Amino acid sequence: MQPKAVILYSSGLDSSTCLAMAIRDGFAPYAISFAYGQRHGHELQVAKANAKRLGAVEHLVVEFDLRMMGGSALTADIDVPKEGVGNEIPVTYVPARNTIFLSFALGWAETLGASDIYIGVNALDYSGYPDCRPEYIAAFETMANLATKAGVEGGGGFHIHTPLIAMTKAEIIKAGVALGVDYGLTHSCYDPTPEGLSCGRCDSCRLRLKGFSEAGLSDPLPYAD
Amino acid sequence: MQPKAVILYSSGLDSSTCLAMAIRDGFAPYAISFAYGQRHGHELQVAKANAKRLGAVEHLVVEFDLRMMGGSALTADIDVPKEGVGNEIPVTYVPARNTIFLSFALGWAETLGASDIYIGVNALDYSGYPDCRPEYIAAFETMANLATKAGVEGGGGFHIHTPLIAMTKAEIIKAGVALGVDYGLTHSCYDPTPEGLSCGRCDSCRLRLKGFSEAGLSDPLPYAD
Repeated sequence: MQPKAVILYSSGLDSSTCLAMAIRDGFAPYAISFAYGQRHGHELQVAKANAKRLGAVEHLVVEFDLRMMGGSALTADIDVPKEGVGNEIPVTYVPARNTIFLSFALGWAETLGASDIYIGVNALDYSGYPDCRPEYIAAFETMANLATKAGVEGGGGFHIHTPLIAMTKAEIIKAGVALGVDYGLTHSCYDPTPEGLSCGRCDSCRLRLKGFSEAGLSDPLPYAD
Repeated sequence: MQPKAVILYSSGLDSSTCLAMAIRDGFAPYAISFAYGQRHGHELQVAKANAKRLGAVEHLVVEFDLRMMGGSALTADIDVPKEGVGNEIPVTYVPARNTIFLSFALGWAETLGASDIYIGVNALDYSGYPDCRPEYIAAFETMANLATKAGVEGGGGFHIHTPLIAMTKAEIIKAGVALGVDYGLTHSCYDPTPEGLSCGRCDSCRLRLKGFSEAGLSDPLPYAD
């Protein structure tokens, strides 16, 4: 039987490419998304519509509300910055977000009998979030193998795959295109219009557009301006 | 100003004692509980009723549903064992539960500006869960300090306190009584009656009753039989 892998899937460019890479690596992909009260809830509609079109065997949406904790422009009433990508950890940082996401992925993986988790973090063209760095991922993997019945009793334990971690956005896009990813089925914007058009100016849009530009490709998504 | 600490609080004997210990240690305690679809949802009613009576400054209940993942007698349709505490990891183990709980506690702590998290895990009189062991807690702390803005930019980083980890249940109860904990305001049973009476036969009740017996005290809670 084909081994299973859990893929953290937000409908974004990175996680959609990750899903294609898990398939390339021989796994049956189980996509997990999170409804956490993000202002860009549009990404969940895109995720629900497209997870299986991108090849997911199952798509699980876990719901909780990080707004009650506040502390981020993505979940609290703070404006999303549009001035370009800076050098400091920006206000769009959500406290412990990837840790919460990976913890649910770990629980689902253990239940499914999967040993492999894919997360599309990237330490090059990124927003400076601490929970996107390789040393963080390595520490999560160590912790996961001490936390779980499967990690303690199992064979090789859990492995957190980060195939994008050392790639530029342009390289990710070129790799995804080679794997047949339709980037028209993805969504990256932190602050889309009510109709779901990308703003083109938030960090996430800027990084995406720069990636397509550097890859010499055009983004199939429509933008507001 | 008094430093804040986040306390994982289930209304149980251990976490209620932990809350009292955080107060003893000079912290303003912020209690966090989880509505995760557990069959013993009664514990949440007890938690909501008693968190502030036990001294919590705030009480946050985070809601999500682990039932969609299944895999445990506490969340799926598997019977809670009543034959006594065994030597293997029991079916009441919930995949990645403490990791999910600690991840939310970490996010809330960072938002509150707290560096301290208390969790009432115990490696002596316990059910054999891997995520109750000191090596797991140490790995989580290491990961937490790589995951967060506060961990990366802050001073001493996060500290996960496990004041009960090397105590017997009897020692925990005696320490709690010395700190003034009213154990009539706590709840431990995995499978209470519809009226909220403890079953007296699940692992959690057995460990609790054994603890009171060894402490030479009587449990103020009513039992079904």
